[in-house]
Amino acid sequence: MSDELLSRLSLNQITLDQWSLKEAVDGCQRHDVPWISVWRHKIQEIGLEQSKKLIQDSGLKVSSICRGGMFPAATAKERAERIDDNKRAIEEAAELGTDTLVLVCGPSADRDIDTARQQVAEGIDQLVPYAKDYGVKLAIEPLHPMFAADRSVINTMEQANTIAENYSPGEVGVVVDVYHVWWDPNLYHEIERAKGRILGFHVSDWKVPMPDMFAGRAMMGEGVIEINRMRKAVEEAGYHGPIEVEIINKLLWERNGDEVLEEVKQNFAKHV
Amino acid sequence: MSDELLSRLSLNQITLDQWSLKEAVDGCQRHDVPWISVWRHKIQEIGLEQSKKLIQDSGLKVSSICRGGMFPAATAKERAERIDDNKRAIEEAAELGTDTLVLVCGPSADRDIDTARQQVAEGIDQLVPYAKDYGVKLAIEPLHPMFAADRSVINTMEQANTIAENYSPGEVGVVVDVYHVWWDPNLYHEIERAKGRILGFHVSDWKVPMPDMFAGRAMMGEGVIEINRMRKAVEEAGYHGPIEVEIINKLLWERNGDEVLEEVKQNFAKHV
Repeated sequence: MSDELLSRLSLNQITLDQWSLKEAVDGCQRHDVPWISVWRHKIQEIGLEQSKKLIQDSGLKVSSICRGGMFPAATAKERAERIDDNKRAIEEAAELGTDTLVLVCGPSADRDIDTARQQVAEGIDQLVPYAKDYGVKLAIEPLHPMFAADRSVINTMEQANTIAENYSPGEVGVVVDVYHVWWDPNLYHEIERAKGRILGFHVSDWKVPMPDMFAGRAMMGEGVIEINRMRKAVEEAGYHGPIEVEIINKLLWERNGDEVLEEVKQNFAKHV
Repeated sequence: MSDELLSRLSLNQITLDQWSLKEAVDGCQRHDVPWISVWRHKIQEIGLEQSKKLIQDSGLKVSSICRGGMFPAATAKERAERIDDNKRAIEEAAELGTDTLVLVCGPSADRDIDTARQQVAEGIDQLVPYAKDYGVKLAIEPLHPMFAADRSVINTMEQANTIAENYSPGEVGVVVDVYHVWWDPNLYHEIERAKGRILGFHVSDWKVPMPDMFAGRAMMGEGVIEINRMRKAVEEAGYHGPIEVEIINKLLWERNGDEVLEEVKQNFAKHV
């Protein structure tokens, strides 16, 4: 693997959900993976202070915190609670030394998807000043349309760009995850449009048949996604930061983490 | 149920795949369902001539034939074979007395999705004169992006409209299937854009959790789709034709067909 590409590899922690934060940090060190994306449920297991110490002692760089978002809700009270939770996520990002909070924007509370999308825009608008105070950018990740009912009503790069453009690139940007956006006929146009505000690039693959809608993503190279083409496109749009490997797959969680991580590195080198 | 709405109900045959064409025709008659959408594998079971006689004797109207399409392929020879097969589908549509051939456009033969999309456009272009000779319209049905890898590279109304607009509304149009397009942020704009060339409206529902990506569609009213809103939108765009109930769900195939059809009618009346 070229040193340049290797220097951008980030382990998104959900890929090895069987590992605690300490195990993941140790694993990244053993395998020369320089970046990690930390999930909040892993921080909660040991507390923010200890998480911070783990990261600092390791010398690992944190590419992002997963995740904020989940803005839509049936009542104003619930929506305010979600905003509070997002503020905690912003604080955690700052403490762990990353400037990127990934937003999975949330599903609708009912059938009214337009209102839910409006609530997402409003939630982000409320958070921007708070995030700015902490030096954290809000990174809107469009999710595949098959998650529109249960995970996010933001399903295209076009939607993410349209919201992000209300703010400066230092405040709000977008994450390009190949699994979520590869099918989009407007993809390359929207990547170009996102120039200067791409805050993350996530890789995995889409393999048919899909064993599980949520936890059935494939290893890079095993599916149909033109990963390398998309990497070049985000680079042309100015993104040269860490590349997160985020393979949400039940089968990987049952395997030996070290073996998986070695396989991740090999496939990253070949197919990203 | 209002007589007006009932007069538009069409049984898409895949909803009751356990029934042969004869059983489906008889079932529609027993339950006062005036329309049927016929699948080609059901025609093949008994032959075109007998299928035609069954339909004619019953007085049922045929809303569409499912399906043509599947244009992309690795070699020119294979693509030519697909065109031939589409010509047979056009002939079958004409013989069974419908002017609508639904196109499920097909997946890519490899990772090159742009080329596959180009092959779809070329395939349709080759078919138009033939279809016109038979008085059959080509109805492009965008499929949900989760089928981009294995069923169709046409995944949005925008794509379907863009291809259709190369032809007159009497030649090429689009099918709006709520299950495939409900998540689309540009949906209502694209329905309006399709004014005068909507050739079908298909209903079912999207329920979480999805038991099966292909055969896990829900009964109307059990999921999150704003079906009634979409019906009004297609009507404003000039469509007042049959409404196909196309619920692809394994569980329905295991049940008594008469019970399912009664349930279809009730939910159609309430939620469409």
